[in-house]
Amino acid sequence: MILYTFFRSSAAYRVRIALNLKGLAYEAVPVHLSRGGGEQLAPAYRKLNPQSLVPVLQDGGHALTQSLAIIEYLEETHPQPRLMPKTPVERARVRALALAVACEVHPLNNTRVLNYLSGPMGLGDDAKRTWYHHWIALGLGALEARLAGDRETGSYCHGDAPGLADCCLVPQLANARRFKCDVSPYPTLLMIEKNCQALDAFQRAAPDQQPDAE
Amino acid sequence: MILYTFFRSSAAYRVRIALNLKGLAYEAVPVHLSRGGGEQLAPAYRKLNPQSLVPVLQDGGHALTQSLAIIEYLEETHPQPRLMPKTPVERARVRALALAVACEVHPLNNTRVLNYLSGPMGLGDDAKRTWYHHWIALGLGALEARLAGDRETGSYCHGDAPGLADCCLVPQLANARRFKCDVSPYPTLLMIEKNCQALDAFQRAAPDQQPDAE
Repeated sequence: MILYTFFRSSAAYRVRIALNLKGLAYEAVPVHLSRGGGEQLAPAYRKLNPQSLVPVLQDGGHALTQSLAIIEYLEETHPQPRLMPKTPVERARVRALALAVACEVHPLNNTRVLNYLSGPMGLGDDAKRTWYHHWIALGLGALEARLAGDRETGSYCHGDAPGLADCCLVPQLANARRFKCDVSPYPTLLMIEKNCQALDAFQRAAPDQQPDAE
Repeated sequence: MILYTFFRSSAAYRVRIALNLKGLAYEAVPVHLSRGGGEQLAPAYRKLNPQSLVPVLQDGGHALTQSLAIIEYLEETHPQPRLMPKTPVERARVRALALAVACEVHPLNNTRVLNYLSGPMGLGDDAKRTWYHHWIALGLGALEARLAGDRETGSYCHGDAPGLADCCLVPQLANARRFKCDVSPYPTLLMIEKNCQALDAFQRAAPDQQPDAE
């Protein structure tokens, strides 16, 4: 398998964690999201992914896009160890937690949105920071409320084994810190993150451990 | 089943289509997203969903959140008719198409984001429209490129039966039109939309057919 990745992309980070948790070897091909105007916009990469986003996972001639779709694919093709619980209700909970990051927080704060705010919209650094912090506080605050209140929460987002939701949570917290957000109001998220970071699979997936890290 | 819904919410619209495609009856409980400052912010609703978002599907005492997680749950608990193809590669494609709407387009243009742009950020209507149109053009343009180029595309997003990706595409196109976006550059999306709109399941799910429509 080949993973088109960028060390700082939290979507790529999610897939790196999942691949590591499942013990799957892969070749990492870095796609630099800002160098030369963005390597993801090059024609060859656009052919691979018309969305011009990382990650792409290439497996047996198939180019798979969208981090959550890739992780579900890995779960279906390499079921062990499981990253999703067994019952439909539990699976719905884990998917909802993952989507609460992937649909409600990350899309508002990724590189292309921040570039659009500072470029065409002409926002200064302060206004951009206010925007970023607003969505982090709203999104992570809601996630904290849910995880703190659910009895299904364990040492990880769901029970006592790491899974799909943890693959999304850890990169989002890393991103929040990079933008100097105060994460102290989220003790449950921090407890889960600490348990994740104790695992080799999460450590090896971290941005600063990637071959393309700057 | 009880669906907490808002006629104009495209996330709720997705779930309404899926419920109809599967022939599942449900009770609709409207949650008005702006009346009285937003009914989704009321304490009772926040208890149901700390994210304060619609939809929520209540099934047998379980409150399920996030539209894509709800549709996957319906697929697992009521497999027929299928909204997802059978092989992992095909399923990954359908999920990626759905996520291309749910993660890359819709989060940037939903009510709370538009409210934040015009409220705290003080943007005028023109600037807000520019923002909206930018992300629609980028997101739907990429989706058009992918759907037009893939041989798996049929009369619907994947082959000749409606599914998860169509549940996301149709509400997003409706939303784009509501904000006066030019959708003519997306002939493949429009062809698929036309085929969807010929089906009773899609017609009955439309915003103007809901009991809470204004």
